[in-house]
Amino acid sequence: MKKILILPGDGIGPEIVAQARRVLDVLRNDGLEIEMTEAPLGGAAYDQFGSPYPEFTQKLAREADAVLLGAVGGPQYDTLDRPLRPERGLLAIRKDLNLFANLRPAILYPELANASTLKPEVVSGLDILIVRELTGDIYFGQPRGVHVNEAGEREGFNTMRYAESEIRRIAHVAFQAAQKRNKKLCSVDKANVLETTEFWKEIVTDVAKEYPDVQLSHMYVDNAAMQLVRNPKQFDVMVTGNIFGDILSDEASMLTGSIGMLPSASLDQNNKGLYEPSHGSAPDIAGKNLANPLATILSLAMLLRYSLANEAAAVRVENAVKKVLADGLRTGDIYEEGTRKVSCSEMGDAVVAAL
Amino acid sequence: MKKILILPGDGIGPEIVAQARRVLDVLRNDGLEIEMTEAPLGGAAYDQFGSPYPEFTQKLAREADAVLLGAVGGPQYDTLDRPLRPERGLLAIRKDLNLFANLRPAILYPELANASTLKPEVVSGLDILIVRELTGDIYFGQPRGVHVNEAGEREGFNTMRYAESEIRRIAHVAFQAAQKRNKKLCSVDKANVLETTEFWKEIVTDVAKEYPDVQLSHMYVDNAAMQLVRNPKQFDVMVTGNIFGDILSDEASMLTGSIGMLPSASLDQNNKGLYEPSHGSAPDIAGKNLANPLATILSLAMLLRYSLANEAAAVRVENAVKKVLADGLRTGDIYEEGTRKVSCSEMGDAVVAAL
Ligand SMILES: CC(C)[C@H](C(=O)O)[C@@H](O)C(=O)O
Ligand SMILES: CC(C)[C@H](C(=O)O)[C@@H](O)C(=O)O
Repeated sequence: MKKILILPGDGIGPEIVAQARRVLDVLRNDGLEIEMTEAPLGGAAYDQFGSPYPEFTQKLAREADAVLLGAVGGPQYDTLDRPLRPERGLLAIRKDLNLFANLRPAILYPELANASTLKPEVVSGLDILIVRELTGDIYFGQPRGVHVNEAGEREGFNTMRYAESEIRRIAHVAFQAAQKRNKKLCSVDKANVLETTEFWKEIVTDVAKEYPDVQLSHMYVDNAAMQLVRNPKQFDVMVTGNIFGDILSDEASMLTGSIGMLPSASLDQNNKGLYEPSHGSAPDIAGKNLANPLATILSLAMLLRYSLANEAAAVRVENAVKKVLADGLRTGDIYEEGTRKVSCSEMGDAVVAAL
Repeated sequence: MKKILILPGDGIGPEIVAQARRVLDVLRNDGLEIEMTEAPLGGAAYDQFGSPYPEFTQKLAREADAVLLGAVGGPQYDTLDRPLRPERGLLAIRKDLNLFANLRPAILYPELANASTLKPEVVSGLDILIVRELTGDIYFGQPRGVHVNEAGEREGFNTMRYAESEIRRIAHVAFQAAQKRNKKLCSVDKANVLETTEFWKEIVTDVAKEYPDVQLSHMYVDNAAMQLVRNPKQFDVMVTGNIFGDILSDEASMLTGSIGMLPSASLDQNNKGLYEPSHGSAPDIAGKNLANPLATILSLAMLLRYSLANEAAAVRVENAVKKVLADGLRTGDIYEEGTRKVSCSEMGDAVVAAL
């Protein structure tokens, strides 16, 4: 019996997670051995417990085999003190569960090719996997803060930091992912300026010796940001640190034009993971039954694949999503003329039917 | 009599700078009061003096009113010790001359609209100015290096750092640039994670009080990387720190598809500046008379405008460039069917004739 913790979160989170939950219900009825519990994270957790990652949620998260998250954040929390804001809940659960490996696919669905702002020939067939380190780097590095410096002036400071073992373990994840795909890995750094990333490059190059079948390349982060626009299909798997990964994975998602379709997984050493759509909490359309639940449903597919090691169930969910797209169903964000516009729950109905 | 120092640099640097120099010669014959000297920077300086920014060059750079640079770097220098590499010369001259304000326009020339990988409607008329802070941030922050940490493990580390005065002065440059354009400024940060950039946001917001006619917005860097792909025309002026600016300005240049056309300026407090094309040293085509000299010639136009306060001469050069484009002349990088492919020096001939 596997334990799945569901964190609806804020904004459109509850609506999109509700549809993923219906998919899970179908799988359970068909014999998938799971237990589901729910807890708040982010703003919802602050409202209920006064903290974006309260003990209540922490305890359940530690016990779970996998966590499915909607999204966190909303304008009503913007004025809270820094440690109480929704994003801190997300950063806290990543760190607490040691979810160091963030896998973010950027895939262009043929049915949605028009949604991209790039020319069809540049993006058709696009299929990149970005492997982003998620628990180190300048996100968590100490010392940090705002102080008065030696010159008597106020100054902000943060520390980028990577230890050898942190780089090694994410490099292994990336090489292994590349082995299952087109065996090309591009490691992104700024080794010409930053010692941390020069060290990153050295360690990734060392790990490469264990994966002679994978072709490793290195690219500066500024060039990578350009190459994603110039010729994104040159990439198979990309691996990079937390902050560069934050920037490049968002850029890469947007190349598809349909970020409402893109799932993500954040894994620990033992494939326990947190799964969430790549998009945000979209407060402007929250509660209106307009959101696209497919990225969340595809995140559930990743959960089945990685944390439950149930490839068959994962493929079943992914095929159901492909079917509804092929049938021409679209939520507002991916709607175009000649297709049928549906609500969030209608999209859920269709996926359930397609299962 | 204004002093202009010319730094041909490496790779295609000497070829493209030679064409810009011819343009300067014409202007001088027509009465522009300038003195020109030349010095090496980067790999060329290492070859001649054993240092990428030798005293010889430093002395001339400090005395000059403006500096025109080709580009630095090449594979033959990749194995040098870090402090001897060409890029270190570039970083050193920026810091030495206190060139804290890097202005990088991303403009789509109507004649070159096809070169973009983005759909015409997304980029036609694109005209963004990125103002990047250039002498602070994690580029220069101390402490930095690779050491053995408390756990006995090797670790790389760097320090992001911004003092209030550094943020204030670049914010003023950005607001003033916005005042001369469409009066919209977007400040890019990662204030939800990094204290340095939360402080950045606070100071920029404070400086905004002095520019009530400019509309200020704030955006997270990951979102900015997405929005540049989704809808780049929403931006007028963007201002950000050194490392985010490095990434976003390269991404923005590539939206135009013709980075061989884009100039840049790096200014100090008194409009003394270093001017260089946004593209690199392209070692693969160096010495073949194939490179596009227009970004360098347009950098010269920026030099005339900012450091020599000679708007008329700047416009004259820019119009000459527009004329050769309108006449259908193209170097290889921007060539398409129906236009005339020319060499680097032929392009120089045409610009000189158009003057
Ligand atoms: C919300 C924010 C803290 C987070 C991050 O920067 O990691 C988000 O941008 C993401 O990529 O998941
Ligand atoms: C060559 C390198 C050090 C430099 C930088 O990172 O600033 C370059 O990428 C640039 O943008 O001018």
